[in-house]
Amino acid sequence: MRVHYECLTCQINQCQKIVELSTDDLEKRKRAMIFSAKLFAKHFNESSIPAVVGSDIFLELYEHLGVDDPFRGYKAKSNKLAQRVVENLKKKLKIDLRTALKLAIAGNVIDFAVGYEPEKLEKDILKMLEEELYIDDSERLFEKLGEAKVLLYLTDNCGEICFDKLLLEAIREEFPKLTIYIAGKEGAIINDATISDLKEAKLDEVGNVISTGTRIVGVPIGRVSDKFLEIFNRADVIIAKGQGNFETLGEIKDSRVFFLLKAKCKPVARELNVPLGAMVCKAFK
Amino acid sequence: MRVHYECLTCQINQCQKIVELSTDDLEKRKRAMIFSAKLFAKHFNESSIPAVVGSDIFLELYEHLGVDDPFRGYKAKSNKLAQRVVENLKKKLKIDLRTALKLAIAGNVIDFAVGYEPEKLEKDILKMLEEELYIDDSERLFEKLGEAKVLLYLTDNCGEICFDKLLLEAIREEFPKLTIYIAGKEGAIINDATISDLKEAKLDEVGNVISTGTRIVGVPIGRVSDKFLEIFNRADVIIAKGQGNFETLGEIKDSRVFFLLKAKCKPVARELNVPLGAMVCKAFK
Repeated sequence: MRVHYECLTCQINQCQKIVELSTDDLEKRKRAMIFSAKLFAKHFNESSIPAVVGSDIFLELYEHLGVDDPFRGYKAKSNKLAQRVVENLKKKLKIDLRTALKLAIAGNVIDFAVGYEPEKLEKDILKMLEEELYIDDSERLFEKLGEAKVLLYLTDNCGEICFDKLLLEAIREEFPKLTIYIAGKEGAIINDATISDLKEAKLDEVGNVISTGTRIVGVPIGRVSDKFLEIFNRADVIIAKGQGNFETLGEIKDSRVFFLLKAKCKPVARELNVPLGAMVCKAFK
Repeated sequence: MRVHYECLTCQINQCQKIVELSTDDLEKRKRAMIFSAKLFAKHFNESSIPAVVGSDIFLELYEHLGVDDPFRGYKAKSNKLAQRVVENLKKKLKIDLRTALKLAIAGNVIDFAVGYEPEKLEKDILKMLEEELYIDDSERLFEKLGEAKVLLYLTDNCGEICFDKLLLEAIREEFPKLTIYIAGKEGAIINDATISDLKEAKLDEVGNVISTGTRIVGVPIGRVSDKFLEIFNRADVIIAKGQGNFETLGEIKDSRVFFLLKAKCKPVARELNVPLGAMVCKAFK
């Protein structure tokens, strides 16, 4: 997916968030925002992929600010919040494969949810469970998983990964012979889960945690490691969570890839031809 | 006032609004946003005055888009809404000079209020009337008006100008010998009132409508016309409405200037050392 017209303002707002999390010094913040403007003029063009151009800009901004992981605290809070909600849901619900799938998609909202009371997040998640998937290729996903040997699971944000763990537990129970790889980013980039974040949230209990080999959001095929690419090519089924993975992998229309996401912004909703907020499990044929 | 770190995102959001009001074509919108990014890299620096750098960028963007007044419809709606509220208030309240002053400051919210039901706007304005001014140099303003021969009134947005008319009516009644000049912009720039907008809203019934001689928001002294400057220099009292006039005139600390505004953004609130949303009638001594 290439940038839409709204991507610029969204990413500059993210730059401001990065700057605010990185320093309290108003002069430094101002210099960093002026530096950001120059980065957009340099990197942003009509054929840019939002996740990739955003990451390149954010990483240059990190360097300018002298920070490595401004979202560290934010990510920890997201995980804690999500963990509490997941534990409550496990007590309340019988979580079969289909429910777990929907929870993993609904968990994608945690991106905005740090201000949430856990009770509020839980309520919203339960409400989303009652919604239909707007695009629903889940039957095909489950069929393919029944025939597959290797599953590659591409994670998205912290917080959300606690819901991914639920889905992976359900998949392991249903398809015990599957070899599962769970990919995180090589290093910190906004609130995406790194390999360390995945290990900390104990995703290694449900599969082999690996790195994409890059800090770029999503899976930009030209920039991932050879090691990751070998597993990517070998996988029979690929579950790709969230918008960043859709932005980077949507164009190759690989029928092994199932995109699980909530369309949280207009460009992604427009690209998928779904209403804003729609929950989706989509594969290309 | 020089740019604060939040000014960049705010102004890019305004560019997006301009683009959305100017064309429905998604490709044109995208090209215009990429063009905007380059404008910020070119114009925006640490010593920029927000109103001036914003106007320069918006005007180049207008040219790129081939539009002259994208806010035309928005401005007409604002005026219509404000007019209805003003008429209702005239029936309900006895509007003395002090009430009119507060109404003119409160009217500054109309910037955001086009979505408002008139009843809601009226309710909010009445609530603001009960609030104290956070900085209140109004006694000095009224004293100075009593001694003055020439008042220059610098307007801000459409909609708000209907409340300015109320204040000017009250001033004329109290100080009938005053010569009043009411300044608008030479041409369209965002939702600011132009000389035509002022005449259409019948501000010429309460004073001489003049142009600053520029389309730049506020009163950038180096860029106004000689004719305007002559009146500016001759005025005994200057009432400067809204943030744009404060941004461009705040630094000269001219004791003739009284700033009437609601601090609608953090940078202006920070600069004035008042809470966000505070209503202010401020003069420098």
